[in-house]
Amino acid sequence: MIRPSNFFSLPSVLPDQELFESLFFKENIRIERIISTGQTTPLGQWYDQEQVEWVILLQGEAVIFFEDGLRCKLLRGDYLLIKAHQKHRVEYTSIEPPCIWLAIHVYS
Amino acid sequence: MIRPSNFFSLPSVLPDQELFESLFFKENIRIERIISTGQTTPLGQWYDQEQVEWVILLQGEAVIFFEDGLRCKLLRGDYLLIKAHQKHRVEYTSIEPPCIWLAIHVYS
Repeated sequence: MIRPSNFFSLPSVLPDQELFESLFFKENIRIERIISTGQTTPLGQWYDQEQVEWVILLQGEAVIFFEDGLRCKLLRGDYLLIKAHQKHRVEYTSIEPPCIWLAIHVYS
Repeated sequence: MIRPSNFFSLPSVLPDQELFESLFFKENIRIERIISTGQTTPLGQWYDQEQVEWVILLQGEAVIFFEDGLRCKLLRGDYLLIKAHQKHRVEYTSIEPPCIWLAIHVYS
């Protein structure tokens, strides 16, 4: 009986920065785990990505703000699609529990 | 404040069959939610897929058996990569709680 890797296994000490880990690459796809512990996008900065990102929050709570004025609160299990160049900022991420995101990046 | 879809929201009545729902399609990628409630692959049958599948079990417990003799027990949060044409069978899926899988299919 083999035991696979577990997505919810965290390092015993989390760094001060967000932790980005690529779990799988293939062709135009990247699957990434992101751990956030209170970090937010600095004021005035935006994520502006060339790729489409399908993202699900699997632990914690977070708020994402989009340039068009929409604000999205995410609880455990919430998922959304962020289009290419849909500018957004992460306004809030919970510290306890840490946010654990699964992001699927699809490049054109 | 908008509220996104939630991956853990299940229909109030689950069908007798496994439930497969595509959450996102783009180019060579398909993201799928699968809900299993005790179903297994019929004896003597195998999944033999042309695509690579990265899969994570997000609720429940399951056992997958591979043609090379390896048996893999999955608990909540366990993930694995199933290569193209890596024949496998699902030998067990928990009924309570139902298994909720997130599968990312990558076609060549």
